[in-house]
Amino acid sequence: MSERTKADIDLGPLPELIGYVLRRAQLVVFQDFFAAFAPFDISPAQFSVLTVIERNPGLTQTQVAAALGIKRTNFVGLLNELEKRTLAERRQVSGDKRSYALYLTSEGAALMRKLRPVLKAHETRMIAKVGEDGRDQLVALLHDIADAGELCEPRNGTGIKRAKASRAPRPGSAET
Amino acid sequence: MSERTKADIDLGPLPELIGYVLRRAQLVVFQDFFAAFAPFDISPAQFSVLTVIERNPGLTQTQVAAALGIKRTNFVGLLNELEKRTLAERRQVSGDKRSYALYLTSEGAALMRKLRPVLKAHETRMIAKVGEDGRDQLVALLHDIADAGELCEPRNGTGIKRAKASRAPRPGSAET
Repeated sequence: MSERTKADIDLGPLPELIGYVLRRAQLVVFQDFFAAFAPFDISPAQFSVLTVIERNPGLTQTQVAAALGIKRTNFVGLLNELEKRTLAERRQVSGDKRSYALYLTSEGAALMRKLRPVLKAHETRMIAKVGEDGRDQLVALLHDIADAGELCEPRNGTGIKRAKASRAPRPGSAET
Repeated sequence: MSERTKADIDLGPLPELIGYVLRRAQLVVFQDFFAAFAPFDISPAQFSVLTVIERNPGLTQTQVAAALGIKRTNFVGLLNELEKRTLAERRQVSGDKRSYALYLTSEGAALMRKLRPVLKAHETRMIAKVGEDGRDQLVALLHDIADAGELCEPRNGTGIKRAKASRAPRPGSAET
């Protein structure tokens, strides 16, 4: 029995279950991301938050959390950490004592510039596994899976959907 | 600014990043799984472990953990919980004081029978989002992403790959 190797083990229905293979693939991709971003001590979630703040300076905490489908309590912890490292900052919204608008610091903006080639190299490694057309297919299918559900409790006006329609041919893809 | 809604928020490169969309999709699928399996208090990880034990009675802890890409420390916790609930049990391997072989209890086997239609209904809901052909494509692409990497520290003879070759047409799929 102790001689049994991988080829002998029956995983039953697991390798065909969408959730199981999604989780396996996600862990592999995140493992690569963590390794690539380790010198900067930036996690996938932190990178997402910094990206949304960089692209949309002045959004409130609630808006950024909702855009990324991050629970409010988790988001506060994430942001505290980014603020402690002076990568992002909260500024009080005038006329609303309970709302904070989010901005990158100049340090945060400089870090994001440094991370751009790191992200590109990571994504290139992932695309290499499936090819460009495979990537386009995969991303479209994953949006079909993700968009039919809601990550957070839906609240009016704070959820987000991607801008592009799924399954539409990407410019330069084999379908165009 | 506080009026900004989802359509206005620029997610930058995120919606095209494999890791980002993988994570979003995985959370949506797991959310459905958690809801469906809540009456039985079974998580996706617990279900995977029970499935491998059911299909391969007598495997060691190390073998099951490696087959599922679960870290040893996490696996011990998972198994303790399943043993506490008398769904699975460890039995000492004769001639090896440090090794335990894993089996379902009759309670565990009965639970797995009850879970079969629950799993099927969950998977049917997921497939409905992409169609049967979409599912086949998605699963093949996810295997391409997952199999090029290793989830745990690779150890000889304890890792696992899926039995089927990726991207091969599935019986009954449009390609056959």
